[in-house]
Amino acid sequence: MTYTAHDIAILFNANIIGCSSARVHNILPIEKATENCLTFLANEKYLSFCATTNANVILISSKLFHKIIPSFHKTYIVVEDAYIALQQLLQLVQQQRTIEYNIHSLSCIEHNTMIDKNVGIDAFVYIGSDSMIAEYSHIGSHTHIGKNVIIGRNCRIYSGVHIYDNVVIGNNCIIHSGVVLGSDGFGFTKQNDGTYLKVPHFGNIIIGNDVEIGSNTTIDRATLGSTIIDNGVKLDNLIHIAHNVVIGENTVIAAQTGISGSTIIGKNCMIGGQVGFVGHISVADGSKINGKSGVTKSIKIPNMTWDGNPVQPFHKLKRQQILMKQLIEKY
Amino acid sequence: MTYTAHDIAILFNANIIGCSSARVHNILPIEKATENCLTFLANEKYLSFCATTNANVILISSKLFHKIIPSFHKTYIVVEDAYIALQQLLQLVQQQRTIEYNIHSLSCIEHNTMIDKNVGIDAFVYIGSDSMIAEYSHIGSHTHIGKNVIIGRNCRIYSGVHIYDNVVIGNNCIIHSGVVLGSDGFGFTKQNDGTYLKVPHFGNIIIGNDVEIGSNTTIDRATLGSTIIDNGVKLDNLIHIAHNVVIGENTVIAAQTGISGSTIIGKNCMIGGQVGFVGHISVADGSKINGKSGVTKSIKIPNMTWDGNPVQPFHKLKRQQILMKQLIEKY
Amino acid sequence: MTYTAHDIAILFNANIIGCSSARVHNILPIEKATENCLTFLANEKYLSFCATTNANVILISSKLFHKIIPSFHKTYIVVEDAYIALQQLLQLVQQQRTIEYNIHSLSCIEHNTMIDKNVGIDAFVYIGSDSMIAEYSHIGSHTHIGKNVIIGRNCRIYSGVHIYDNVVIGNNCIIHSGVVLGSDGFGFTKQNDGTYLKVPHFGNIIIGNDVEIGSNTTIDRATLGSTIIDNGVKLDNLIHIAHNVVIGENTVIAAQTGISGSTIIGKNCMIGGQVGFVGHISVADGSKINGKSGVTKSIKIPNMTWDGNPVQPFHKLKRQQILMKQLIEKY
Repeated sequence: MTYTAHDIAILFNANIIGCSSARVHNILPIEKATENCLTFLANEKYLSFCATTNANVILISSKLFHKIIPSFHKTYIVVEDAYIALQQLLQLVQQQRTIEYNIHSLSCIEHNTMIDKNVGIDAFVYIGSDSMIAEYSHIGSHTHIGKNVIIGRNCRIYSGVHIYDNVVIGNNCIIHSGVVLGSDGFGFTKQNDGTYLKVPHFGNIIIGNDVEIGSNTTIDRATLGSTIIDNGVKLDNLIHIAHNVVIGENTVIAAQTGISGSTIIGKNCMIGGQVGFVGHISVADGSKINGKSGVTKSIKIPNMTWDGNPVQPFHKLKRQQILMKQLIEKY
Repeated sequence: MTYTAHDIAILFNANIIGCSSARVHNILPIEKATENCLTFLANEKYLSFCATTNANVILISSKLFHKIIPSFHKTYIVVEDAYIALQQLLQLVQQQRTIEYNIHSLSCIEHNTMIDKNVGIDAFVYIGSDSMIAEYSHIGSHTHIGKNVIIGRNCRIYSGVHIYDNVVIGNNCIIHSGVVLGSDGFGFTKQNDGTYLKVPHFGNIIIGNDVEIGSNTTIDRATLGSTIIDNGVKLDNLIHIAHNVVIGENTVIAAQTGISGSTIIGKNCMIGGQVGFVGHISVADGSKINGKSGVTKSIKIPNMTWDGNPVQPFHKLKRQQILMKQLIEKY
Repeated sequence: MTYTAHDIAILFNANIIGCSSARVHNILPIEKATENCLTFLANEKYLSFCATTNANVILISSKLFHKIIPSFHKTYIVVEDAYIALQQLLQLVQQQRTIEYNIHSLSCIEHNTMIDKNVGIDAFVYIGSDSMIAEYSHIGSHTHIGKNVIIGRNCRIYSGVHIYDNVVIGNNCIIHSGVVLGSDGFGFTKQNDGTYLKVPHFGNIIIGNDVEIGSNTTIDRATLGSTIIDNGVKLDNLIHIAHNVVIGENTVIAAQTGISGSTIIGKNCMIGGQVGFVGHISVADGSKINGKSGVTKSIKIPNMTWDGNPVQPFHKLKRQQILMKQLIEKY
């Protein structure tokens, strides 16, 4: 990449203090930046680095710019929030990287598929019959797409993703390596002799738009009907989502959390890592659940923070822990 | 699929109330069923849906049939337990889906393998030398089978499974995508300089008959001897089973549980999700261990329910929690 | 394999009691060994098996040799520590298995790569442009190596590993099946409308020498800069390591542990299974953290043992648990 300070400033309608033709080839943190780098200053803690950084262009929050003594050898792009500006800049840079849309000769595509001509398919991809992939989507190497799968536009499926039959994926989704979508749920009926009879799974998974799924996460398909991951949901790595679960819009879930069968999670929830949910419960919209919690009953009041195993309202748990400590110390 | 009510009733030797030639093309839950669907009624809670469902054929438990007012527009198949009948029906439907047995031209099979002619091998499968696959088994795309592996009859290995050398798998097993079987156990000897020397692993894994393994679960091979998963064991997704572990017949384990090296789990146990077991302990037959528990010592009394970290008998833990709450409230 | 007792004894400069030409074809535990096997006796608990084992050659610790009555039908190789000798022996046997260095015709290697001629590449491997693989490394089937990846010498990458662009791996590393290296970290900025804007990830991962990574473990790349796994680190299966984490030299981490973004783990730490770390904290060198713990604050004192959620010094937690029990019993 090569940009001038001017190229960047116009993106944010920002003022330039310094040389508007200053060129940058890379973006690096303030303490690590080398010459011809853009760096950013959004946090007061790093103020002292401003004088010593080797970067020649600094994207800086306006409230911090008043606290530094500008150097004549540097160029400053002053924006309201340098951190948000940085994210937007990085996003733009990423989008500009050219993606080639073609089908690799070492892929295997069954008959009767509908694949837009602006779709990229890498080596060793398998795509089953009756599947559809819309424009600007890209399928990484070693990915398996079963029969009758639908993948929307502008999706990025990385290498080694395994998608079972009948899964539906919306637009603008990002699915990382090793994700498994649509495996059978964990359902068995105990027989009199102690063995288990498998409950067959005839359902599927429906994934909305703008969903991101982290590496090696697994989502099981429904017994009947659909496991649903709604628009804007973000899932971290190594998460387990069982059959018939529903996850509401814009809910984010951190790594290694597990959700048991038929549980319904509301919208706009924030769920920490290593949390466990039992099956057949529901969690109200806007719930925040701290890491490592165990959710054993439905949460009916929205917008509260929960912690512990079994979960309690966070302030209640904290109070109990303090009282407990006092009790022990007194004893 | 297209079946008549009569086709289904004869499977269960069941009575038909209504039109025996009524046709169904799909199976759906009672509140979601559309015309020409079969649905089922096994739970009193859903009794009210019986009058309003759009399904034209209803599989119904005999004890519930006496509680409804049959409609002349619907057909009822009366069985003892509609839920079990449904499972059996779904199983049959699934089996009737044709499986093609052939070897895909884009697979890679080394010399000196024994693969039955009634085995299906999908694209991009690799099979190492000296391996054997028995009849009616099916190997999904992108699966790696090492050297000297044995896979029994009627197994379904989904796409992207990785099986190291010398693993043995019985008959009628189902292994979901992303499963890794036979990686080295986590064993190291600390050296005087603080570095670790790897303990080489020369053992293997032996998996019995009728075992199901959920997606992205990992099972390590033994240092010497075998890691053993006995007949009828059912493992959910993202489970970790370390080297030299033994899991007894018909034990079921929910997602994200981890079992450390050389631990022996008895028969007919039911283990919840996110449970952790330390190494070198044993767990008695018929133990039930609740989700998120930590098992730090051997469990010697069979058929009890355990909870907590470290685990205690469930009733004891509950009693402690109640007393604790009272203590705090009094304080 | 076929070795004589003499072949083995000279490795350890050890005494042979018995027949130095005794032949062994296999290595098995003392209670399972058959004829023409080598077995070992390093633990007093197994002393009684010494008389009954079928093995013809016994590798025995010198302090135990004085406690047995040697049989005329067996050969004893007396070493200081039979367990360590066994590990070294197994290591040697493993190294002697021939590895073939060639590039499989069903692999796909992009232009402008540097792959040493003594590198083995299996079927269905994809290697992106500008990547480098040094001598004596071996890449298993179905592995994806992105663009501009560097893999050092003498590495063993098993089948189905997914390595994103720009990852750097040192020498002598072992990476097991299903590992994902370099997926995007879990970073999003909340917008006013409740949706999340993805934080693009431009960093990479740097992995040192002598690192082992267990199956299905995932490591995310840094937002900017590098996620770092230092020399000699050993990671078990199904571990999650978030973006910008640093793990110090010779630290070992057991299965299913998760480390949140930007957390720094010191050198020589021992971390149990299913532990969770919040983000942006640091853990002092030599810390031992017991399984299932939750680390919510930085640990500043080195070389201590921690347990609980949130973690406390182990002795303190134990004391609390005892006092608590007494309190409840008295109540």
